[in-house]
Amino acid sequence: MIPLAVDAMGGDFAPRNIIEGTGLALDSQPRIGPVFLVGDQAQIEAELERIGRVDDDRIKIVHSEQVVGMTESPAAAIRSKPDSSIAMAVDLVKKGQAMAMVSAGHTGAAVASSVLKLRPLPGIERPAIATVFPGPRKQFLMLDAGASVDCRSQHLAQFAVMGEIYSRYILNIDNPRVALLNIGEEASKGNEQVKEAHHLLESLRKRGLNFVGNIQGSNMFDDLCDVLVCDGFVGNITLKCSEGTARFISNFLNQYLRKNWCRRLGALLSRNAFRDLKAIADQSEYGGAPLLGVNGICIIGHGSSCSNAVANALRVAGEAVEQQISQHILERMSELQIGNRKS
Amino acid sequence: MIPLAVDAMGGDFAPRNIIEGTGLALDSQPRIGPVFLVGDQAQIEAELERIGRVDDDRIKIVHSEQVVGMTESPAAAIRSKPDSSIAMAVDLVKKGQAMAMVSAGHTGAAVASSVLKLRPLPGIERPAIATVFPGPRKQFLMLDAGASVDCRSQHLAQFAVMGEIYSRYILNIDNPRVALLNIGEEASKGNEQVKEAHHLLESLRKRGLNFVGNIQGSNMFDDLCDVLVCDGFVGNITLKCSEGTARFISNFLNQYLRKNWCRRLGALLSRNAFRDLKAIADQSEYGGAPLLGVNGICIIGHGSSCSNAVANALRVAGEAVEQQISQHILERMSELQIGNRKS
Repeated sequence: MIPLAVDAMGGDFAPRNIIEGTGLALDSQPRIGPVFLVGDQAQIEAELERIGRVDDDRIKIVHSEQVVGMTESPAAAIRSKPDSSIAMAVDLVKKGQAMAMVSAGHTGAAVASSVLKLRPLPGIERPAIATVFPGPRKQFLMLDAGASVDCRSQHLAQFAVMGEIYSRYILNIDNPRVALLNIGEEASKGNEQVKEAHHLLESLRKRGLNFVGNIQGSNMFDDLCDVLVCDGFVGNITLKCSEGTARFISNFLNQYLRKNWCRRLGALLSRNAFRDLKAIADQSEYGGAPLLGVNGICIIGHGSSCSNAVANALRVAGEAVEQQISQHILERMSELQIGNRKS
Repeated sequence: MIPLAVDAMGGDFAPRNIIEGTGLALDSQPRIGPVFLVGDQAQIEAELERIGRVDDDRIKIVHSEQVVGMTESPAAAIRSKPDSSIAMAVDLVKKGQAMAMVSAGHTGAAVASSVLKLRPLPGIERPAIATVFPGPRKQFLMLDAGASVDCRSQHLAQFAVMGEIYSRYILNIDNPRVALLNIGEEASKGNEQVKEAHHLLESLRKRGLNFVGNIQGSNMFDDLCDVLVCDGFVGNITLKCSEGTARFISNFLNQYLRKNWCRRLGALLSRNAFRDLKAIADQSEYGGAPLLGVNGICIIGHGSSCSNAVANALRVAGEAVEQQISQHILERMSELQIGNRKS
């Protein structure tokens, strides 16, 4: 059995969606349990009542009075709310009562708490959030999506290894193609950080990493890589820029497809194509983004996670435990001869 | 009259589109002339023949044997091809024979040539390429789109001023709202470079810059700013990521709107909405991206510029001369008390 800690108070629709999602996960994942729901006991009990799971012995409530608000600074939240639902969920992992934690709450607080309490993996100097992007034929993993915004080149090389392992063991890609997000394809392109990272990754390629070179933002979705590496600042902006562009197009079409009856009829007849697009862009199937590089497993869900997304985050947390992701990262670091020496 | 130098050999469809575009510009812009077409004399003459402008006395041919290939490194191209069409077009500006130059060729070579030959404006330590993004109601300017990939915070502050001036005098925005591209809205968010830049811009706000704070990639298209500031690495990735996302959506819909007769009919009836979207995303009306911060005017066109885009680039070059952009940048730098002291 895989015990998990779940921040029941994190996310725009918490605790309702979190509890519902936990229920779904328990139904479909018999290996998971117990699930420690961390948060306001009364609210959690009310939600369990609603979904008829008050007596589920795979669920345990851990009462927490404090919740980190979405606008708080992570550092201040960690200091002033030592008993927040996020912090206490991480504590359960630290104490070994849970083998992984899931939160759809404050990303910065979840990252800061995890790094502080669980500590980085040996040889990893910066943690990274790995996020799944949709692709035409298959999805790809991008990291870092925002955990480490000030990086040096060796941190990008460490991200590459962590992404490779996650892609292989969780997304089941055989020999993941690892690429560097850059402004040109040639090795000479980019800023100093990325040019150096290219050089490091080139040397890792000789030791067995399937490094395929630079990829530009314009070719991100062209199925040229399985793992796309960048620092947390660039990654977060890229993630949000693609969301913003998609929303701009969607809003535009929404408006312009209503302009006259002819377009309205056309939109009605072709609506299933838009439904298909929405389905492929839907992140809820991917089950949250793992924080990689800390000594323990932490899965971060989107603030607006629906219950299905929460259930998938629990599933992924269970898989990451079973697949011993951290162990594989350490082995791969040693195999590729990177780590402590560069600290 | 405003004499312009045009790199006749730069771009995917040169010299054909460049010459056609020049013809269009001469027809619509009586103030422009002469235009020095720099490139292979025989090819230019053939194209002028084709459009019936062999005897146009507002056109002068400046023969150049060398062309910078799109895959060459800028530094190597500058060294090995001193008489490339790009370099000679910049030389015409340097010698005062032309008041601005236009190239749809190798961006890196155009930037390197301009910086080297024209020199930076006093107080500006890094040049920036300003590019126009479409927006729901009106477009906005983003800089830097790729001229300066290694920046410090004060360079971003300089970009802010240059963007403000370009937006005011060329895009006719009264009191342009200047924002910083970042991963969160709070001043405390971002990497070190951007946090410091926020601080600098906040102090410029007190001296009169209309700084409206941070904007995230997800809100880029929400008409929250007129000028969006970032370094050249982030800007180029953002630009290309939004192109890539738009292309992904467009390819997806193209495929899924053909899946059955019902969708095909729907797509046919609503095709004008897609035409409208294409029109708003069409960069050719914006007339190329200015390289700001050098002592002279250089307008960089997209490699795939159609003749209409080239004509608009010439129009913008003329406007930048008439509006004395560089002069206004210098005045504004002094007004806001930034420049040399920080070098």
